[in-house]
Parts: sequence; structure tokens; C-alpha cells
Amino acid sequence: ADPKAVAAAWERQHALTKPRGALGVLEEVGARLSGIAGACPPPLPEPVAVAVFAADHGVHAQGVTPWPQEVTGQMVANILGGGAVVNAFSRQIGAELCVVDVGVAGPPLDDAPGLLRRRVRAGTADLSVGPAMTRDEAVAALEVGIEVGRDLVTAGNRLLVAGDMGIANTTASAALVATFCGLDPAEVTGRGTGVDDAMLAHKVTVVRRALDLHRRDPQDPIAVLAAVGGLEHAAIAGLLLAAAAARVPVVLDGVIAGAAALVARAIAPDAVDCWVAGHRSTEPGAAAALDALGLRPLVDLDLRLGEGSGAVLAVPLVQAAARTLAEVATFDSAGVADKGAAGRAGEVSP
Amino acid sequence: ADPKAVAAAWERQHALTKPRGALGVLEEVGARLSGIAGACPPPLPEPVAVAVFAADHGVHAQGVTPWPQEVTGQMVANILGGGAVVNAFSRQIGAELCVVDVGVAGPPLDDAPGLLRRRVRAGTADLSVGPAMTRDEAVAALEVGIEVGRDLVTAGNRLLVAGDMGIANTTASAALVATFCGLDPAEVTGRGTGVDDAMLAHKVTVVRRALDLHRRDPQDPIAVLAAVGGLEHAAIAGLLLAAAAARVPVVLDGVIAGAAALVARAIAPDAVDCWVAGHRSTEPGAAAALDALGLRPLVDLDLRLGEGSGAVLAVPLVQAAARTLAEVATFDSAGVADKGAAGRAGEVSP
Repeated sequence: ADPKAVAAAWERQHALTKPRGALGVLEEVGARLSGIAGACPPPLPEPVAVAVFAADHGVHAQGVTPWPQEVTGQMVANILGGGAVVNAFSRQIGAELCVVDVGVAGPPLDDAPGLLRRRVRAGTADLSVGPAMTRDEAVAALEVGIEVGRDLVTAGNRLLVAGDMGIANTTASAALVATFCGLDPAEVTGRGTGVDDAMLAHKVTVVRRALDLHRRDPQDPIAVLAAVGGLEHAAIAGLLLAAAAARVPVVLDGVIAGAAALVARAIAPDAVDCWVAGHRSTEPGAAAALDALGLRPLVDLDLRLGEGSGAVLAVPLVQAAARTLAEVATFDSAGVADKGAAGRAGEVSP
Repeated sequence: ADPKAVAAAWERQHALTKPRGALGVLEEVGARLSGIAGACPPPLPEPVAVAVFAADHGVHAQGVTPWPQEVTGQMVANILGGGAVVNAFSRQIGAELCVVDVGVAGPPLDDAPGLLRRRVRAGTADLSVGPAMTRDEAVAALEVGIEVGRDLVTAGNRLLVAGDMGIANTTASAALVATFCGLDPAEVTGRGTGVDDAMLAHKVTVVRRALDLHRRDPQDPIAVLAAVGGLEHAAIAGLLLAAAAARVPVVLDGVIAGAAALVARAIAPDAVDCWVAGHRSTEPGAAAALDALGLRPLVDLDLRLGEGSGAVLAVPLVQAAARTLAEVATFDSAGVADKGAAGRAGEVSP
């Protein structure tokens, strides 16, 4: 991030016709957007593109979810048909949406507008009994995400959202978050789509077994990804890196994006400055990932859907933060009396 | 609210292609919108109108804020010129905005597009030494809000936001909230635009003195309003009642709207079903009011600006909740496998 633009954003926030600090977290978002763009005010972050990365997980065989694996492909078809929650939310904010098949199991998906066929393999192997994928496959999936991110930016998009679709992907996410954050599986494994207590306990055991089996060094993020990650985690990490390289902000969704962001940050630590946390999922691994990334989520509504849905909800908040810096009058320009230097000096700056 | 429509909304939420309960608080909002409209799915709540009610407060003379009283009129001019935060946020969501002068102090404001001249009196009297206004004035201000609300609905708006502008209005809000919630002034009086510790302590004393002086019965809400309220509180309460009568939802902003909602609920208890809490302000009286109203805020970003700004930010979330019910496919329609009745039975319904 550009420290001069960040400083200019804070200075401008304080000159705008509002009490100092009265926009709370949105002032931090405005400063962040300025730092990403290297300019204050930052450009309005639009148009917005949502890329949903779909993949399957071999760990599904361990019974970590009540949903059949076929639901991944069925939900991809639902998204391509415009019928999923992420479609409704994207229409609400005027965002374009595509689905990237980076690793759905089963036969190739039917062609459809908005589907990008980039399958690296037909689902990962079972991470609890061996590596989820090879190192080459992890790199290939990462490159898929880099390419998609770059293409979306080239197409003119100025804010990206990376969504996910993949039955059992919260299990792989928990393994990634536990590894990168050094936390116990019980702290970061959640109910995903809503498993019961018995299945949750089993899921924790599966994640623990995977970590004991692989013992990867978080300093080698590709190795961690290959051992316990998913193809969509790799691809989302790639998109996050491509966007940061292009200085285009990305809004993170829940635990899948959070886990992918930990991978991406391990590859390129400064990239984190280009990401905004969209929401706090009920999934414990999501909160752990955001804490580790130092990001405060904008929406906190007990969501646990995935697809990028929570991030899409946060987009208007991010845009409002940018609009504030671009459009709100200053005390001087509006002829509004500030409460004066004396009052200001007594206040704590944000 | 229509209980059949609420039940239909929950039934539909459970049939949509998403895990049960995965949209958290938004599912409650969707049920609420259905109940208001008496239909599931509810109509998309747009277009949106924002009415900012401006008024001054005699209690300003007690030194409860570092801002001069003239700032109320200056900020009204800023809003009418499009330069305030609420303007930027309203543009972001495509909402129309008007300002209602229900009681600004000083000479009449200059005519301007979007200004409604409905001044009942030029600011209230000092509530800490006598009644803020007469009962007739409180009723007149309430009627201003009823009329504005009715006009906005007649003009076709299907979601309303009531904002506020008035230096010292958090002091009157604290007195209203303390009275209706039966709380101590220290629990509900906050820093407003950002007063220091000494001024906050003084502000609490002023509110306490007012409550000791008036001792109004919350069962007579007009009497409370006349004793310790503001003209904008009365008008916002009126708008809340008019919208509820027309079954059009209103998104509440911070402590001023929260205090006004307590007044309105005391007049018409069922009306609360038509309101949605936009955000949790840092002002303690806002949280107390929402608790008393049984409303959970959608946005929680340490905002404390007023003008309706926090409510406007919440509008896309409210719209997303409605879109979910209207646009998302069901398991049946999309051909997606549900995890089955066994899995369902094990889950807790919302």
C-alpha cells in the first residue's frame, strides 16, 4: 500500500463535514482503498466481478458432511442458471458473475455462459489418508486463479469477489487455517453447512489426523496447499495475488477465502493490504483466519453459506467508504463551522 | 404483521438451495418483510426514500456539545447541496433524499430543491429547565412526520429511512431512552459527536436533571416527547407510524431514530413489526433502544454520524433479504439434492 495515499485519506477524513471518526470502520476501509490505489480519493470500486471457484474434496469419503458430493456440480448448474443466493445478491449490487470449474468431480460439466472450464483434476484425493494433490497440481490451480484474476481486471473490473462451491470444503479449510495459524483443529473446525455434534466431533478427528499425517511447514505454503488444501483454495489464493499485483481490491468471503488468503499471504505478505474482509462467518476458522490476517469484517450476520455471498453483501459498504472520500464536502468547502482546534486537540485520533 | 406470510417465508427459506439457516439474520429480515407486506415473497423494497428531519434543541445552552448551534442549519444546506455523508451513501443505493425543517433555530432557511419547510417552532426550549415544547407542538411535529411518510409512500417509495440533523439531539435522545426504558441517564447518555470525559459527565447531569424535573409517565408518550424530546424525534415517530399504517418498512438509524421508535411504539405497539434496525451506533442509548424494541441491527461498524447514514448503509442488506425469497431456486426447482429428511430432522429450526 502507498503510505502517502493512506496518510492523505486520514487527513481528508478529518476535513470532511462529519465529526472525527464518526464513520468508524468505514474510515479504515477508505484509507485502505486509498493505499491500494495509491491515490486519495480512491476510484470508486466498480464494476464488480464475482468469480465462484468450484471443486470437490476427496475427504468427503470420511463422512464429514451430510450432503452428497454430487451437490457441488448441481449447485454449479444452479449458479450458472442464476438460481443461487450468490446470484440474487450479485444482481442486487449489479455485479457480473462467473463460475470456474477448477476441480469438480465426475464427468465434464456442460458448457454454459459464465462457466470457465479450468479443471486441474476431478476433485482432490482424501487429505486424511494422503496428500490432497501433487505440488504441480497445486501450482496449476494457483495459476488458474491468477489467470482468472488478471482477466477480470483486464476486462475493467475494479473490485473482485472470490466465491467457492465444494461439498466438504470447510474440512480442508480447517486444516489450512490450523496449519497457518498454529491452532488446534478443535478451535477452527466448524459445522459447515450445519452438521450435528457427532459429525462435528468426527470432522475434528479427521482434520487432526490429516495434520498429524502431513506436518507441513507453513513457511512452504504450496506444500501445505498440496497436502491438505483444495483446488478452489489454490485458485482463490491465485486470484488474491493477481488482484494485489494489479492493485485492485478483493472482498474476502468466509472460511474458504480466509484459508486461501493465509496461503496467499504466506506467498506474498504485502498482498494482504489489498484485501478487505467482507463478513464474519459463524465458522470458527473464518474468524481465526481474519484475526491472523489482521482484518476486521464488515458484515456480521451469522452467515455460513459460502458462494461468495457474504462478501457480495459487503460490497456496497466498501463502495460507500470510497464515495465518502470522493464526494463528501469539507468544512471549508461547505461553509460549515468545525468545532474548532481546541475541541479537536482533545480528541483521540483514530 | 401477517403471521401466515411470516410462516410462508420460513417455509420457503427452508426449501431454497442453501443449508437451513445459512443466511442467519437475513432470514429473519426476509420473514419480517413478508409479514409487513402480507405476502411471500415480499416485493423488493425499492425505490428508497430518505427523509432527514432537522431541528434544534434548547438544551444546547447547557454546553452539552462543542458544536455551535448554527451547524444544524449549515449542515442542512450541505445536505441540500449534496455534500454530506448521507448524500454520498444515498447516491450509492440510488435513494432519493429530502430534508424536512421541522424546527431549525434562526431565520427561515432559503428555499432549495428537496427542502420541505415544516417548521413547528424555531428549536425546542431547554428541556433541563422546563418542557422542550408544548403538547400541541409535539402533536404538530408528529403530524409533520405522518404527512411526510404518507407522501413518500404515495409517491411510490417502498422503503423509507428517517435521518436526523440537529446539534445536541443526542442529549434529548438520551432523556427519551432513559424514560421509556427505565434506565439511568448514565447508561444511555453517550459522546454524541465525540465529547470528552468532562463534557460527557456534564451531559449525564443535564439529562438526570431533566428527568428529575419532568418525571413523565412513559404510558403518555406525547407528554414525554413534549417534556424532553425534540421536534425531529416527534416527526420521525410520525413517519414511523405512517409507514407502518401503509405497511411499508422503515430502516432505523441510530439513537435519534431509536428514541423516536420508542415514542412511536408507545403510541402503536404493533408498528414495531414494520421497522428494521439499520445499525448499532456507538451511542449507548441506541443499543438500549434496539434492545427494548427487540430489534437486531444489521450493520455494526462503530458509526456515530446520524443523518440516517447508518440506516442507508443497511438498505442493500434488507433488499438482499427480499431478493433471496423472490429469486433463489428451491431444491426441487433446481434439481439439487437436499441432504434429506434425516439430516433435517436433526437440525434446530431458527
